[in-house]
Amino acid sequence: MSDKRYLFTPGPTPVPPEVLAATAEPIVHHRGPDFRVIYERTLLRLKDVFRTENEVLMFTASGTGGMDSALANLCSAGDPVTVVSAGAFGERWAKIAAAYGTNVDKVAYDWGEAPAADDLAAALRERDAKVVLLTQSETSTGVVADIRALAAVAQEAGALVVVDAISSLGAVPLESDEWGVDVVVSGSQKALMSPPGLAFVSVSERAWGTRGDSPRFYFDWDATRKAQAAFDAAFTPAVSLVRGLDVALGLLLDRGLEAAFEHHVRLGRAAREGIKAMGLELFSPDDDSAAVVTAVRVPDGVDGRELLLALRDRHGITLAPGQGALKGKIFRIGHIGWFDVFDITTALAGVELALADAGADIERGVAVTRALEAYEQRVTA
Amino acid sequence: MSDKRYLFTPGPTPVPPEVLAATAEPIVHHRGPDFRVIYERTLLRLKDVFRTENEVLMFTASGTGGMDSALANLCSAGDPVTVVSAGAFGERWAKIAAAYGTNVDKVAYDWGEAPAADDLAAALRERDAKVVLLTQSETSTGVVADIRALAAVAQEAGALVVVDAISSLGAVPLESDEWGVDVVVSGSQKALMSPPGLAFVSVSERAWGTRGDSPRFYFDWDATRKAQAAFDAAFTPAVSLVRGLDVALGLLLDRGLEAAFEHHVRLGRAAREGIKAMGLELFSPDDDSAAVVTAVRVPDGVDGRELLLALRDRHGITLAPGQGALKGKIFRIGHIGWFDVFDITTALAGVELALADAGADIERGVAVTRALEAYEQRVTA
Repeated sequence: MSDKRYLFTPGPTPVPPEVLAATAEPIVHHRGPDFRVIYERTLLRLKDVFRTENEVLMFTASGTGGMDSALANLCSAGDPVTVVSAGAFGERWAKIAAAYGTNVDKVAYDWGEAPAADDLAAALRERDAKVVLLTQSETSTGVVADIRALAAVAQEAGALVVVDAISSLGAVPLESDEWGVDVVVSGSQKALMSPPGLAFVSVSERAWGTRGDSPRFYFDWDATRKAQAAFDAAFTPAVSLVRGLDVALGLLLDRGLEAAFEHHVRLGRAAREGIKAMGLELFSPDDDSAAVVTAVRVPDGVDGRELLLALRDRHGITLAPGQGALKGKIFRIGHIGWFDVFDITTALAGVELALADAGADIERGVAVTRALEAYEQRVTA
Repeated sequence: MSDKRYLFTPGPTPVPPEVLAATAEPIVHHRGPDFRVIYERTLLRLKDVFRTENEVLMFTASGTGGMDSALANLCSAGDPVTVVSAGAFGERWAKIAAAYGTNVDKVAYDWGEAPAADDLAAALRERDAKVVLLTQSETSTGVVADIRALAAVAQEAGALVVVDAISSLGAVPLESDEWGVDVVVSGSQKALMSPPGLAFVSVSERAWGTRGDSPRFYFDWDATRKAQAAFDAAFTPAVSLVRGLDVALGLLLDRGLEAAFEHHVRLGRAAREGIKAMGLELFSPDDDSAAVVTAVRVPDGVDGRELLLALRDRHGITLAPGQGALKGKIFRIGHIGWFDVFDITTALAGVELALADAGADIERGVAVTRALEAYEQRVTA
């Protein structure tokens, strides 16, 4: 087995060495000046990345903890909640909403379909919703939803708009304020190029004015807002992860969000063109919306599970399998955050090798070059 | 200002360099074999440290998240809960219990007093409790409660026994199974010598058989138990922090828990003898129970806040202030986890210097030597 490891999953994602090095600095007290300057800068940088004037709350938790906090703070049992679901993470919203006893209406799609704003509008004409739960990047399928259109429809219907942007924030555009998104949830371990363990939640004035009576303590937004107003945390934060995030956000913002968005579009193009050149079939959309995950159908006659095990255990390359009903039917190449075109060509070269070993009928010798060519082309607006 | 930093707070605590280095290793996928072996070993090591045959659940969260999970899983609104409170962290239990709408009865003490099992027994004769919430090390005062006696009384009364052992586990004895403690909550950032960001919760069979109907998702014990049964996590864990914890638990267990307990007793003795030799007055108990935090009264005529700022900003030494009503009245020297006697002598030397600068009437030139002498003596059982 290879000694080198290539992590090409849609999360956790690879972390730049300077970010890892920052996480290994000696522990400082979370209420001292050494940490406060880092914390303050990080909170401000998060607002830039979220494209919002609203407060961005930071929790020591996985991204799902941030999602949980949205229901815990906004909803009471019985509240009407509408979930747009087209994959595993839309289903997670539905499960959390059900756990909080809300009255869940689901606008459901086959996994792999892109949600349509018209369908949400129709559902909201049928039944009012206090909160609409959306998923920007449905990591299980590679589909990136049109949040601008969906949010407009939800806002028009008078609902609060809550978006899971865990795997998309910093990779594809999300104009929280301009698009009227009330609550955006994200995490450290995707396009923000940091280790997992921090969740972020931006909250609009409209959302601050809405409260449910669900019990909450650790994830109480008001307690965290009050602490952050003094650049403090309600509970001991993961200081080493915040240090890393500070460095990672610096890298992202120094380069610029627009540059990051273009980079992700080009990474997606490179992956798709390489996959198609091999003669494989895409599961995720074959357009520039698919900028964070490229999902590929496992060719007939190939065991999808064995393919990924061979890649991982023989070649050191970790790709992601299909989830739910897609298990064994697709595999997924993540390209979120700290990726460049040579990560894509390595993933493609690995897939080519492993599929050839598995006896699949694929075109050899073309994928890597096609990917390089596709990446070269600038994105025209 | 000094370039070197000395973190002598009761949390977060200093982390050994080999633990920090482990946290900076490249990110691995949480469902791959590179991580699974670390995760499995860490979960088993936690059981050793918790002295339990019960499952220890791991959450990506501050320790308070683990406390929150106890109420979320065990209680419904209206359930009778009894809290033993003698400081800031007892009060935190009461606040969490109130947030979950339980019917809270408080056995309250002045901050600095040690809870007595007889008082709890009397309270439980007056009113049944479904759950009794205890604090082992009340970090705000330096008092370590007699959990064995308190747990026996609570169990006798038929209540579930839940202990906050966040700042004590691995520093002072806690025999979870032998003492009949149903739920033990701890965190990574104290005696477990790791960065903050991981919370642990051990759950007895009796506690598994008790469920409230409070809404929960991220902190749902059953979801995490189910995932951990396959050495998986319910949600993306903080993989880098788990890597560090694995190394730290190895250090702790290789040396042995008994050795760690004796070490902490001797660190406490060294701190107390040094403090008294300077002519200062202890706030925490002057006995071997005070093995994790030494709390000291600020001498008359000295501004407690200024004292800590001088230590921090002139000498690079961070001590902890008093909390709540004790603010400005005491300061606290933490000695939990990765501390040795020279950390104690540095803290004492710093206090001596800063108090002399502040014009306090203290004995100079004796504290460090007295501390070294006190540390030398073995603990006899």
